[in-house]
Amino acid sequence: MSKPLSFQDVIMRLDRYWADHGCLIWQPYSEKLGAGTGNPATTLRVLGPEPWNVGYVEPSYRADDGRYAENPNRMQMHTQYQVILKPDPGNPQELYLGSLEAIGIDMREHDVRFVEDKWESPALGAWGLGWEVWLDGQEISQYTYFQQAGGFNLDPVPVELTYGLERIVMFLQKVRSVWEIDWDGVHTYGDIYTRPEVEHCIYNFEQADVDRLTQIYNLYEAEAKSCMERGLVIPAYDYILRCSHTFNVLDARGAVGVTERASYFGRMRDLTRRVARLYVEQREEMGHPFLKLQQPARVVQPAPEMPSPDDISSPSTFLLEIGTEELPVGDLTLALEQLEQAVPAMLDDLRLGYDAVRVVGTPRRQAVLVSGLAPRQPDRTVEVNGPPAKVAFDADGNPTRAAEGFARKQGVPVNELRVVTDGKKSYVLATKTEEGQPAIEVLGAALPGLLAGLRFPRAIRWNETNVAFPRPLRWLVGLLGDQIVPFEYANVASGRATRGLRPYGSPQISLARAGAYLSSMAQYHVVVDTAERRELVRDQAEALAASVGGRIPEDPALLDEVTNLVEHPTALIGRFEPEYLALPRDVLVTVMKKHQRYFPVVDPDSNDLMPYFVTVRNGDDQHLDVVREGNEDVIRARFADAKFFFENDTGQSLESFLPRLDTLTFQERLGSMLDKSKRLEKLVLAMGSALDLDPDQQTVAGRAAHLCKADLATQLVIELTSLQGLMGREYARLSGEEDAVAEAILEHHLPRSAGDILPQSGPGLALGLADRLDSLVGLFAVGLAPTGSADPYQLRRGALGLVQILIAREIPLPLRPLLAEAAALMPVPVPEDALDAVADFVAERLRGLLRDRGFRYDVVDAVLAERGDDPYSAYRAAAQLAAWVDRDDWQDLLNAYGRCIRIVRGLDTRFEFVPGIDPEAASVALREAYEGASAQITPESDVDRLFTALHPMIPAINAFFDDVLVMHEDRALQESRLGLLQDIWELSRGVVDVTRLEGF
Amino acid sequence: MSKPLSFQDVIMRLDRYWADHGCLIWQPYSEKLGAGTGNPATTLRVLGPEPWNVGYVEPSYRADDGRYAENPNRMQMHTQYQVILKPDPGNPQELYLGSLEAIGIDMREHDVRFVEDKWESPALGAWGLGWEVWLDGQEISQYTYFQQAGGFNLDPVPVELTYGLERIVMFLQKVRSVWEIDWDGVHTYGDIYTRPEVEHCIYNFEQADVDRLTQIYNLYEAEAKSCMERGLVIPAYDYILRCSHTFNVLDARGAVGVTERASYFGRMRDLTRRVARLYVEQREEMGHPFLKLQQPARVVQPAPEMPSPDDISSPSTFLLEIGTEELPVGDLTLALEQLEQAVPAMLDDLRLGYDAVRVVGTPRRQAVLVSGLAPRQPDRTVEVNGPPAKVAFDADGNPTRAAEGFARKQGVPVNELRVVTDGKKSYVLATKTEEGQPAIEVLGAALPGLLAGLRFPRAIRWNETNVAFPRPLRWLVGLLGDQIVPFEYANVASGRATRGLRPYGSPQISLARAGAYLSSMAQYHVVVDTAERRELVRDQAEALAASVGGRIPEDPALLDEVTNLVEHPTALIGRFEPEYLALPRDVLVTVMKKHQRYFPVVDPDSNDLMPYFVTVRNGDDQHLDVVREGNEDVIRARFADAKFFFENDTGQSLESFLPRLDTLTFQERLGSMLDKSKRLEKLVLAMGSALDLDPDQQTVAGRAAHLCKADLATQLVIELTSLQGLMGREYARLSGEEDAVAEAILEHHLPRSAGDILPQSGPGLALGLADRLDSLVGLFAVGLAPTGSADPYQLRRGALGLVQILIAREIPLPLRPLLAEAAALMPVPVPEDALDAVADFVAERLRGLLRDRGFRYDVVDAVLAERGDDPYSAYRAAAQLAAWVDRDDWQDLLNAYGRCIRIVRGLDTRFEFVPGIDPEAASVALREAYEGASAQITPESDVDRLFTALHPMIPAINAFFDDVLVMHEDRALQESRLGLLQDIWELSRGVVDVTRLEGF
Repeated sequence: MSKPLSFQDVIMRLDRYWADHGCLIWQPYSEKLGAGTGNPATTLRVLGPEPWNVGYVEPSYRADDGRYAENPNRMQMHTQYQVILKPDPGNPQELYLGSLEAIGIDMREHDVRFVEDKWESPALGAWGLGWEVWLDGQEISQYTYFQQAGGFNLDPVPVELTYGLERIVMFLQKVRSVWEIDWDGVHTYGDIYTRPEVEHCIYNFEQADVDRLTQIYNLYEAEAKSCMERGLVIPAYDYILRCSHTFNVLDARGAVGVTERASYFGRMRDLTRRVARLYVEQREEMGHPFLKLQQPARVVQPAPEMPSPDDISSPSTFLLEIGTEELPVGDLTLALEQLEQAVPAMLDDLRLGYDAVRVVGTPRRQAVLVSGLAPRQPDRTVEVNGPPAKVAFDADGNPTRAAEGFARKQGVPVNELRVVTDGKKSYVLATKTEEGQPAIEVLGAALPGLLAGLRFPRAIRWNETNVAFPRPLRWLVGLLGDQIVPFEYANVASGRATRGLRPYGSPQISLARAGAYLSSMAQYHVVVDTAERRELVRDQAEALAASVGGRIPEDPALLDEVTNLVEHPTALIGRFEPEYLALPRDVLVTVMKKHQRYFPVVDPDSNDLMPYFVTVRNGDDQHLDVVREGNEDVIRARFADAKFFFENDTGQSLESFLPRLDTLTFQERLGSMLDKSKRLEKLVLAMGSALDLDPDQQTVAGRAAHLCKADLATQLVIELTSLQGLMGREYARLSGEEDAVAEAILEHHLPRSAGDILPQSGPGLALGLADRLDSLVGLFAVGLAPTGSADPYQLRRGALGLVQILIAREIPLPLRPLLAEAAALMPVPVPEDALDAVADFVAERLRGLLRDRGFRYDVVDAVLAERGDDPYSAYRAAAQLAAWVDRDDWQDLLNAYGRCIRIVRGLDTRFEFVPGIDPEAASVALREAYEGASAQITPESDVDRLFTALHPMIPAINAFFDDVLVMHEDRALQESRLGLLQDIWELSRGVVDVTRLEGF
Repeated sequence: MSKPLSFQDVIMRLDRYWADHGCLIWQPYSEKLGAGTGNPATTLRVLGPEPWNVGYVEPSYRADDGRYAENPNRMQMHTQYQVILKPDPGNPQELYLGSLEAIGIDMREHDVRFVEDKWESPALGAWGLGWEVWLDGQEISQYTYFQQAGGFNLDPVPVELTYGLERIVMFLQKVRSVWEIDWDGVHTYGDIYTRPEVEHCIYNFEQADVDRLTQIYNLYEAEAKSCMERGLVIPAYDYILRCSHTFNVLDARGAVGVTERASYFGRMRDLTRRVARLYVEQREEMGHPFLKLQQPARVVQPAPEMPSPDDISSPSTFLLEIGTEELPVGDLTLALEQLEQAVPAMLDDLRLGYDAVRVVGTPRRQAVLVSGLAPRQPDRTVEVNGPPAKVAFDADGNPTRAAEGFARKQGVPVNELRVVTDGKKSYVLATKTEEGQPAIEVLGAALPGLLAGLRFPRAIRWNETNVAFPRPLRWLVGLLGDQIVPFEYANVASGRATRGLRPYGSPQISLARAGAYLSSMAQYHVVVDTAERRELVRDQAEALAASVGGRIPEDPALLDEVTNLVEHPTALIGRFEPEYLALPRDVLVTVMKKHQRYFPVVDPDSNDLMPYFVTVRNGDDQHLDVVREGNEDVIRARFADAKFFFENDTGQSLESFLPRLDTLTFQERLGSMLDKSKRLEKLVLAMGSALDLDPDQQTVAGRAAHLCKADLATQLVIELTSLQGLMGREYARLSGEEDAVAEAILEHHLPRSAGDILPQSGPGLALGLADRLDSLVGLFAVGLAPTGSADPYQLRRGALGLVQILIAREIPLPLRPLLAEAAALMPVPVPEDALDAVADFVAERLRGLLRDRGFRYDVVDAVLAERGDDPYSAYRAAAQLAAWVDRDDWQDLLNAYGRCIRIVRGLDTRFEFVPGIDPEAASVALREAYEGASAQITPESDVDRLFTALHPMIPAINAFFDDVLVMHEDRALQESRLGLLQDIWELSRGVVDVTRLEGF
């Protein structure tokens, strides 16, 4: 093996490569940036219609990431290589992979993965979708199709490639610490950068003068504004960059409070948007000069072959393959599901018969195989209305020129026109046979619509067609038998060429005929069937685990995800140093599963983790050891990081992290996370009372509330946010807190997702509920109720969790008083209608849950109308009510009870039953029946008790209505009878609203 | 010809080239720098003992150079490529030239020159010597051997190469404007940078908020200091860079007043020195880790051949060639002159006979040829004193062991010892014959001393020997006949290899024998003889001028300089657009001569400039057209610049530039140039009165004083400072000022150098004198009198000019009253002793001038003692006195007059002659003689009148002393006689101090 490239060689190779591929080579910017994206060569040049292709190095400063050079791969300055390709050249992934080859990474020897990624910077008004690119498990680049920047939709869409140079070079050089990187054959990276790194850390974290930096920030901002008033884009932008860096230092210094942070972000966002607008206007005024420059040649789609539709005369197989850049797992699933529905519908609509539709797919292709597709539509008879009869025929009954013209136009002899009469009108009718069209033609016409009809929650544009899809669509195969079905979509023309596996260089594969698709793909090692891939993954993983005496815990979600990350799965087992097993299991599992998509391996007996992991490579087993080694390096580095953080965190008590919570914003107007946890300390006591916690439990709940957010400030949770709660529990225990306190800290987060476990302990329960109510009330109060598309605080999940807990733990609990308690603790006024809105919002989650549990909508409506404020009670009511409405005699009961209600429902007045004035026996009997039932029922009664009590009244009710005229002319009598009926209706008040039930 | 490289290609090639030659490739810095030197990879890494080799691009911001993108090659941002080689690799010039080849510049096709350059930044405590590198007349790089930085002596010495990338690429691409540079095959430099350039100019010149930037500067400074207190080098340095950039913007904005400027510079200097010290300490503490790194291999000097001294048996030729990097013209001359003196002296000292010594030289070699050098020293007899006789011989006269030992030691038989007696001592003497040593050996031993004995006003160190020489010494040839004379100096070993011409790649040439030196050099086209080169240059230049009907004006200094810039001169004639002839002649000539070292061509009849220039290329005439074209491009660009400035300047009146003078410092405490010119407006009137100007002349002088400094603020003078005065006159005329005013503006600068013309008009004269007195008085008052080595305000030249003018214009003028006038106008108090010091200083210049004119020192002393304050009077006195002291009867006169003086010289009391009390006839006669003389003499009398009057007194004086006892016991008589003698002495007071004359 030849000597790996030095750090500077890699940069020079990338410069050369991208220059050779049409990029302007640019230089790092003369200001301190947080990322290459901040260079005006990206931030500004991506705006507007002009083409722009550029590559450059960017030393990127992120004060917060500083670790005093004590961490092997985290530092306040790292080096990015940034590429912008605008417009999309048609083959950006291939160009990117070519650049990896150029720096000595052979695709055949490694595992390169495109792992879905969303990039978003609200501060910059920017977002895009793309991938993290993984090399043997290590993230080495980010790849983004920019959709918006500076608040502008980007058109054309730029592709942004960001290489993490240190990581790539560490990989190439097989060193485990960035400081060991060989820079130039003489110096290490550490020789050059260790000392500045340490100094910057000391400055950023300890020395920077907050007051002076704050002044500097303000002065920069004023200059930026002054520049913008004068229309000076670059000088203004320089000051904005300085603002941003100054803010980062202030932030790292721990000097940015909650209110300031939001304010700073707002100010920076405002500046950025203004400068973007100014730049757009400037280029507009300049007439977009780059539009006129001769750009390098782009990939051109080959012209499709001309089909010969007449060649298809018998049923044959139809293949549609949609070739894409790697789709996210969820989008792939959605695409396949939709195709399974939409293709048969389309074929029916096209009147094309077929035997069967099969949908298969991988991240790079979604394929539909239709067997036995009819070669053409059947003919059909069509009737066409023509002119009025009196216009078509003259007085002699001879066809006029109008009739002749109509017949000619319809292609029928004039003598075959018929006259039909419809009501008063008579008109001419032509009956003609419409010839069925060849399948190849109608498919070609229909397929663009099929593709356009696919829907995804989040899609991007990438080329001038502005078609939206989760990721760019790069090729289309449309074959009917051996013929190409010609169509075009998103600037891609259909053909017979598909592509092979990435590790083989995505070779073009020409498909002779549709029917050979599966065998051709198999020949080229693409496992197109998802189920087949899933089996392969599972079997391989289990076999590997067994080979070391372990097993893979069941995890269908992970299995599905891994299955849909590859086209040809080859599992491999890697190991890590057993010393890391000393870390909390949650940490290890989170790192393996969430971060690396590895299957953990456990001991079949003890279920303890073993020092192994299984990962799945895309491709065959060639050079599998290299891939294993790479993945082992990655997990080792990640575990080392985690260990470092864990040890740092456990060097102090959990409680000691509390002060730092004051620098973490919960919400600008609602204060910091520290403010929130102080509110919870109070609210949890009210909640505990409502839940009848005993004094010991209350003490535990109070202590847990005190500590429940502290882990947010620990390094490990800052690193691995999904460990929040788990680490809180762990650190609480290690800090000597009571077990119950530790448990409650975790429990207050439960359930963290659908299907997650629920809190068991009273304190955990109380705290979890209190936390959710605090968030709901506070955020609604400041106008941050979720909207249709935005729920940044995940209030839906919070409210649903609250409902789930109460139902699962069978705790009846009217929420309204607790909402009021929460409101009283808020630092902002909480209007009553905000509490109403929260109650409604919770009730809506409850409604969804009840419907999901299969309750009829009317049943749900009926119970929510009365018990919406108390989820468990509502749930129980629904369950009981559901049983009642299923009874054979239910309609009798409902009819009878309904008669009582309907007659009084419209009344504004509550009348009083007056004993003794009603002479009718039926009245007396009903009154007796009522009083018998009423004795058994209270407003807290459940549905069973209600209807059990009501049921015996049916005869009395029916008799009453048969015998008695309620609306008697004697006003007193009438009112007493109405009062009786109102009393009867009253029985169900607070329990269920029967008027909402079907059949009422 | 292949397509020239794009801008980015050039950068990539340089990166590759320097990486291949052992450099670490670095990135532009994340701050705005004024030059690549500011990058810490230079500023800091050059300090201390550690090796460091680095190359990087540096976009360099100099706000003041902004021209709103309207100038073809001047802008506020340009791109440098910076290389540091530390220590000197031994062949840095060759490495540099190799890098030019790497970007497509063939040495054989072009003219590459190394033109002496001094780089100095007092603000950085830094200086170095090197060259501007010229490519076909265009400066493309700066090449410096750094001697000091941050106030530290640099050891090892780093070589700094700074490429002006835009200029190089413009050259390669043959474009005439930087904005037309092809960046990447698609975009021009202008596409990318025009708009930011314009915006930065608007910001820097018009928009930057002075108050805010001043605050920002202060905050930066405070942070820098805070960082340094904490020992944080890089964070501190970042702030220093920000200070510097902020200052540059403030300065461009015109916001830095005189006092602030000096203060800012002082503050920045202080910060820079502190951070340098901190860095040096830090590396020291770290144990200089780079010392341990394995550095790339260096050029190794070949071991010298072993000589066979016995081979040389008859007189032969000795050759010493000192091979250097290109010596500055002045240093080359000095070296040759010194060798002419020192070599014969050395040979005499070595007792080596020879026929003749010839010294020749070029910028790259200084050679000494000694013909007929004796092969060895003659033998000689030496006597050595031994022990006392009584110790050496026993009582019997037999030699003792002591004698035997001594004889053995001296190598003589004991019986040849002699006893000699010196005074009271007797001792033994051995007489031995010391054999002459071979010439080759004694030369080898002596030559290092010869080289070390060469002295230069300014020399550098470059390698670990710390030998000082004007530029590095790279090879040594020492040959005696065909044998190498082995010696070593500055780590270079002597040998027989010399080098050929640069355009041929400096091939190694092995010299077979010393005698063939001249023919070998001729064969390789090196014209080693300066006189021969001078003739070649002159003849070629004249022939070329004649070929277009012109001639070359006589200019020996330029001819000498050009002669010593090349080793093989080939002149060429270039032309420029005749439209430029419309520019003032001074502008054109200055550009051609001072900036380009071109010979202007004039019409032989009219003496007007013609649109041609002659330049001399180093090398033969191959591709001479390419060189011509390059030079024409350069002069065209320079003339275009000048035209641009001239037109801009003449768009407004000269007077309108005055306000900008307020931003130009004269001296911190003495105010701006505007303040100075306001003082001159007053002082010139006093001066005019002293010079008896008439009222019209006074008016002219006042107006000229008002305007005399205004041209300093014009663009053309900012560009071409040597045109100061000339442009003042030109612009004054064009602004409609009177001719006399315009003339006086120029004249007040005269003489600008030795041999320059002198002012003719009264106003010019008055203004020039006033200006000089203002400078002298002011600068002496604030303690800035010149020191031995430093005369930054060129006060010596000023004072000398003043003296020259007064003498040449024959104007007697006592200066002291005018010094007082000047002092009265100063914004600072001027102590009397400062005026004394100024007067002494001027008198010293006068003394030098008089001595230079050949006056005897005693004559000069005698007149300066009385007339030092009035240069012309002193001069005239000296001339007259010189004639007197040459007369045969001078000693009689001096003796007689001296007798009068000597007797009273020591007296403290002034006595009075009392008429009538002295009975002696001789006394009476002397008194009469005195009164006769006295009637003819006043204190303003000149020397002639004095001595003419004194001469007749000789007999009376002599008679008096023969006949009369002065110190008579009668006190009254004695005092009267003394009074008479004092009266006589008094006659010469204020005219000449005869006591200072020889023979007194």
